[in-house]
Amino acid sequence: MGTFPVSSSRIFSSRFNQIPNSLHSFVHPVKHYNFTSNSLHHRVGQCSINTIKSRLLCRSITTKAVLSETPYQNLKYSKIGALSTGPIPSAQLLESVEIAAKTGAEVVMEAVNKPRNISYKGLTDLVTDTDKMSEAAILNVVRKNFPDHLILGEEGGVIGDSSSDYLWCIDPLDGTTNFAHGYPSFAVSVGVLFKGKPAAAAVVEFVGGAMCWNTRTFSAVAGGGAFCNGQKIHVSQTDKVERSLLVTGFGYEHDDPWAANMNLFKEFTDISRGVRRLGAAAVDMCHVALGIVEAYWEYHLKPWDMAAGVLIVEEAGGTVSCMDGGNFTVFDRSLLVSNGVLHANLLEKIGVATEELKGKGIDFSLWYKPDDYYTEL
Amino acid sequence: MGTFPVSSSRIFSSRFNQIPNSLHSFVHPVKHYNFTSNSLHHRVGQCSINTIKSRLLCRSITTKAVLSETPYQNLKYSKIGALSTGPIPSAQLLESVEIAAKTGAEVVMEAVNKPRNISYKGLTDLVTDTDKMSEAAILNVVRKNFPDHLILGEEGGVIGDSSSDYLWCIDPLDGTTNFAHGYPSFAVSVGVLFKGKPAAAAVVEFVGGAMCWNTRTFSAVAGGGAFCNGQKIHVSQTDKVERSLLVTGFGYEHDDPWAANMNLFKEFTDISRGVRRLGAAAVDMCHVALGIVEAYWEYHLKPWDMAAGVLIVEEAGGTVSCMDGGNFTVFDRSLLVSNGVLHANLLEKIGVATEELKGKGIDFSLWYKPDDYYTEL
Repeated sequence: MGTFPVSSSRIFSSRFNQIPNSLHSFVHPVKHYNFTSNSLHHRVGQCSINTIKSRLLCRSITTKAVLSETPYQNLKYSKIGALSTGPIPSAQLLESVEIAAKTGAEVVMEAVNKPRNISYKGLTDLVTDTDKMSEAAILNVVRKNFPDHLILGEEGGVIGDSSSDYLWCIDPLDGTTNFAHGYPSFAVSVGVLFKGKPAAAAVVEFVGGAMCWNTRTFSAVAGGGAFCNGQKIHVSQTDKVERSLLVTGFGYEHDDPWAANMNLFKEFTDISRGVRRLGAAAVDMCHVALGIVEAYWEYHLKPWDMAAGVLIVEEAGGTVSCMDGGNFTVFDRSLLVSNGVLHANLLEKIGVATEELKGKGIDFSLWYKPDDYYTEL
Repeated sequence: MGTFPVSSSRIFSSRFNQIPNSLHSFVHPVKHYNFTSNSLHHRVGQCSINTIKSRLLCRSITTKAVLSETPYQNLKYSKIGALSTGPIPSAQLLESVEIAAKTGAEVVMEAVNKPRNISYKGLTDLVTDTDKMSEAAILNVVRKNFPDHLILGEEGGVIGDSSSDYLWCIDPLDGTTNFAHGYPSFAVSVGVLFKGKPAAAAVVEFVGGAMCWNTRTFSAVAGGGAFCNGQKIHVSQTDKVERSLLVTGFGYEHDDPWAANMNLFKEFTDISRGVRRLGAAAVDMCHVALGIVEAYWEYHLKPWDMAAGVLIVEEAGGTVSCMDGGNFTVFDRSLLVSNGVLHANLLEKIGVATEELKGKGIDFSLWYKPDDYYTEL
């Protein structure tokens, strides 16, 4: 098992190659679990490439004679999915991610069915062990099928061949706090990128709870639609914020973006049908894809949290962007997914709040990308 | 179907009889649905009996030589469940509430399985019809078994014999917004009071979601423990706020208590493992009873929201009080349920926030109690 490597990039395309090579090194991200206070903490390093200006320049803004009062209404949101699944046929790649996610889910289900009235130390061990065993099981599947692919796991960091066009982003247990408490939902999330963009995805959601645990599997392949338990799914058509049900998340770090999102939570609770707070990013995105909530946003997610869910939303007909309305990649530090129809309306608050954070100097550059990994972002 | 009657009380006991008869009339509560903006709104009338002083006087505070810095640590929380199920054997009453709730749940499950991609008007009708049909089905069960009992339904108001010692509090569809969106969870909640105190309770929770809808049934009878699908359940033993998972709710009215609870949401998100916002009061309480979250609180719930859930929590070993730490009745305007161990710690913030609201003149008198209904509160 490796760590996040620090080395120069092989090739950067589009927005990356506008930046001097000297800036291409990424600070090594460090993940630190602290179970003894304030739940789990992730401390991550800083990314030295500031992409905010190039992102703004990249926005396709429709020319209008009169400037709109709500600039987000005129934004076009780039597709975040890969153009193709590359040399691997899409059906094969999709089958592989599904098998990988379901293999991890089997490990998690075994842990779910264990008695929960164990000591705190025992519970901590159960969570850590389940996380690691689920990731190990998923890695086995990936490496057996694609020994030359690059893998970025929440637990194990980067392993595999960094010259591969494929990067697997694995969250072996998304929604750890919920899992620890037996609170639905949590999930196993597996997404595979082709040249930096999501190509295939599977999320196994754990639903129900004690006395009735069950799972359902969401999946998508670039250009092939999104599915839940094999049935095609679609985002909702709700076109008014006041008729929408929304969901957001709050990370482990209680910084300025955390406080800004508290304000957004309040503002949207005030004007929508409600803002849910469920606690598992991959699940929340799948719920947008399923059309049971209209949108989800969060700051500071990681590639393994987002890689699968964003493709499932897009393939279900939804829209994916950063929280400033800019083009999204799974290496970014903010995410807004919606049913598409409401995207611009939501950005009127979410985008403004994010621009304010940027004005304060909050870092919204790319969080991390394996340096040798080739992308067409 | 009747409305909430305005008439003089038959008998008031304990805290009620400290108050002059002239103040015993309750303003008629009016429930108004407004689907076209800002989700559902309930407007309710004002209750003219101010019980705050008597509640504070009623608190049992352990005498100490030195005053504690955290007065809530020394509070004793009165049992909210009935002393007995009266002339009806507890097994019979429990069986009846379970049958009633499951009969309502059958109606809801039929609606859940209908295609959701219907027009907005169609969806509104589905919600309204399901609410009404579920309540009608429950009423049939209750009136067939106990034709002389008093019934307070969310939809139908008060019906039956107000001289009965039994008052059924029925929420035919708790978590309407979630139901409308197909977002789990929501529930059918049936609680029956004996002389004003919860004697038996059943909550059928809808879990899972599209492709895997399922239900589980929580139940309790005064003095007989709490159960989920027939298995005994117990609150968690977590004794530190920083290790707790919490849940709260925000009502339809966006008033001072709503804003105060936004602050509490932020404060507890900061110091706990997280605060969930799921959207169905009866479900949230059952989750406390099941031990998957440590506590739940909300302002402005109604008797039909609370009657079943509070008994289930208490019979699962938890503690129930108002949000100022005072003794709770199902006619009150604030609710805190917890695993008991954490109750005082939570009140250090929740109690203080509620006292501040009282200081501002916010009405925390009883919301409503059918005037002719005899209670031993």
